[in-house]
Amino acid sequence: MHHVGGWETLIVTRDDVAAIVEAVGHDRLMDEMIAELGRALAQFDGVTGMRARDGFVIGASRAGVLEWMPILGADSALIKLVSYVPDNPGDRDLPTIVATLCLFDTTTGHLVALADGVVATAIRTGAVSALASRALARPDSTTVGLVGCGAQAVTQLHAISRLFRLERALVHDIEAEVARSFVARTAFLGLEVEVAPLDRVEREADILVTATSVAPGAGPVIRGGELRPAVHINAVGSDLAGKTELPLAVLERALVCPDYLEQAIREGECQQLSAAQIGPSLSEVLRRPDDHASWRERTTVFDSTGFALEDHVAMTIMLGHARALGLGTSLPIEYLAEDPQNPYSPPRLRAAGRKPAVLDAVAGRRTVRL
Amino acid sequence: MHHVGGWETLIVTRDDVAAIVEAVGHDRLMDEMIAELGRALAQFDGVTGMRARDGFVIGASRAGVLEWMPILGADSALIKLVSYVPDNPGDRDLPTIVATLCLFDTTTGHLVALADGVVATAIRTGAVSALASRALARPDSTTVGLVGCGAQAVTQLHAISRLFRLERALVHDIEAEVARSFVARTAFLGLEVEVAPLDRVEREADILVTATSVAPGAGPVIRGGELRPAVHINAVGSDLAGKTELPLAVLERALVCPDYLEQAIREGECQQLSAAQIGPSLSEVLRRPDDHASWRERTTVFDSTGFALEDHVAMTIMLGHARALGLGTSLPIEYLAEDPQNPYSPPRLRAAGRKPAVLDAVAGRRTVRL
Repeated sequence: MHHVGGWETLIVTRDDVAAIVEAVGHDRLMDEMIAELGRALAQFDGVTGMRARDGFVIGASRAGVLEWMPILGADSALIKLVSYVPDNPGDRDLPTIVATLCLFDTTTGHLVALADGVVATAIRTGAVSALASRALARPDSTTVGLVGCGAQAVTQLHAISRLFRLERALVHDIEAEVARSFVARTAFLGLEVEVAPLDRVEREADILVTATSVAPGAGPVIRGGELRPAVHINAVGSDLAGKTELPLAVLERALVCPDYLEQAIREGECQQLSAAQIGPSLSEVLRRPDDHASWRERTTVFDSTGFALEDHVAMTIMLGHARALGLGTSLPIEYLAEDPQNPYSPPRLRAAGRKPAVLDAVAGRRTVRL
Repeated sequence: MHHVGGWETLIVTRDDVAAIVEAVGHDRLMDEMIAELGRALAQFDGVTGMRARDGFVIGASRAGVLEWMPILGADSALIKLVSYVPDNPGDRDLPTIVATLCLFDTTTGHLVALADGVVATAIRTGAVSALASRALARPDSTTVGLVGCGAQAVTQLHAISRLFRLERALVHDIEAEVARSFVARTAFLGLEVEVAPLDRVEREADILVTATSVAPGAGPVIRGGELRPAVHINAVGSDLAGKTELPLAVLERALVCPDYLEQAIREGECQQLSAAQIGPSLSEVLRRPDDHASWRERTTVFDSTGFALEDHVAMTIMLGHARALGLGTSLPIEYLAEDPQNPYSPPRLRAAGRKPAVLDAVAGRRTVRL
């Protein structure tokens, strides 16, 4: 196998990701993600270089999806390939969300890097909820309520704990064992984490997170009648047509801020609303936080469907650390023939032309250029 | 780095592809592609599990695209990630088409394999033109005309030579040097390959192939006034909105068969036609070849935009050979945590549950199940 420079793909494996998390630390990694994501979201105009995700129905019970989530930046493009298979944890001890991130150089079309997207998805989804909470929840919020205690809930609580002086979390899951294990999974946060009935979680949460695998059509997952008047809700689970977690009555009295409007009206809580009922996007709120500060005293909802901008930021940060730590495996994947006009000519031993600088540029800058 | 079983991704590199082509031989590989593609196309109903490709405009001169091409099969899904950058050969000695193929297990959402797609694209694009030619060209065709002599032209001529007793090829390119080098690039075929002016290519071809990088809006690339009455044209270059190679007058008198209708009306020669002017798809023709045999004596056009079904077949064949030859590098990419509900738990050393059988199934069968 030749390891020629300039036209290889850097593969960032599961073990590389573990080494990055170990070397950088959960907290710093989350803080970086929050900072970079805040910057990138505030720049995003809601349209440029984005496509709403699309996908196929998959899974043994046909309850899952395989999706592609593309974004075009100024010098790189990212395509996230992601599966959501709610049967995975119960049926085969695998994660619900399985993902890889593909980064392309937009000058040559070359696949610059391929990385695990499972950890990146969890971290960025937490980070964006933390940003929304900072913008829309009361700054003195101390109690987080979590409904749905799977993998995403861990990074939701972690991320929010980085921006608020939390005292405790009240957690609920329809599977009692999952709620119980959540206490151990989040012990590293040093918070009081208590399993509680749903009605108590709803009554006491200053910031509420819904992150469930409720089936399309089976929502809502909370009742909403006894929420605190100034509650901020991060609705994380809605990401499929028909899948919603919040009662319409809550949405109707709240300021509902979608992450990416085109997608939220198809897959998020915004499915339940008319255009006139939908508030500003999180990007707009982050651009002018003071204009929306009065909402911190009222009910607000962040409609988080998750979109490729977040993954582009996450990939950039992970690649930056991989490069700095010397991690990753370079493989020459795309066929670079001796004669590019002859697909039957032998593979080139040494790449001609300039080395694509995008990997170094992206990894060195650690900031997504939109 | 752990190399645990069951949840890894098989990477088929440039060198693996070269080893496959070397071990199997160009001819056998092409013959397999033609046979399997014929089977798969004849089964395809034109809708199921397909999406027309979508993409972003890329490239220094913004003349390129980065696209995603997804297809869902019965037990596996393929997403081709492909760039078309016409500046690549001239500006930086790189191929126009750069591609990778991503194969997923549709039970778990796992990325089973990632392979070069450059060689597979060239071979499958040739193979499908050969199938269309067998169905729609005169069986005694001896002269192939090629307009556009880049990488795709090599496999076009090779594929057609596998199904016809060819005597010669007349070739033309707007870059004289590219046409000249084509003679050397196709010397392995043992045919008389002659560089000729465009009008002579058009006059003498029994089977004509257009495979150019003509810019959107700049077509047509042939004149069409002196074609043989029974000519069959494989129009391979059209794959972008506004990019067409054939004069409308030729299309209007021909039976025009698209590969994948939804895409052809957006990106192919069918852009120039109304619905009533478009003939049966190649799949329909291959299902009932005798119904369309009379068209072999008249002008026919195969509108080849290229679609993911072809890539799924190509990936299946390449993976089958990679497995049989012990080629490919297995890497654990997707993060499989000790506790799938805790993205911060360490990577699992040994995958639990059953080993996903899809790689062995797909690679062993070498047939795409739709």
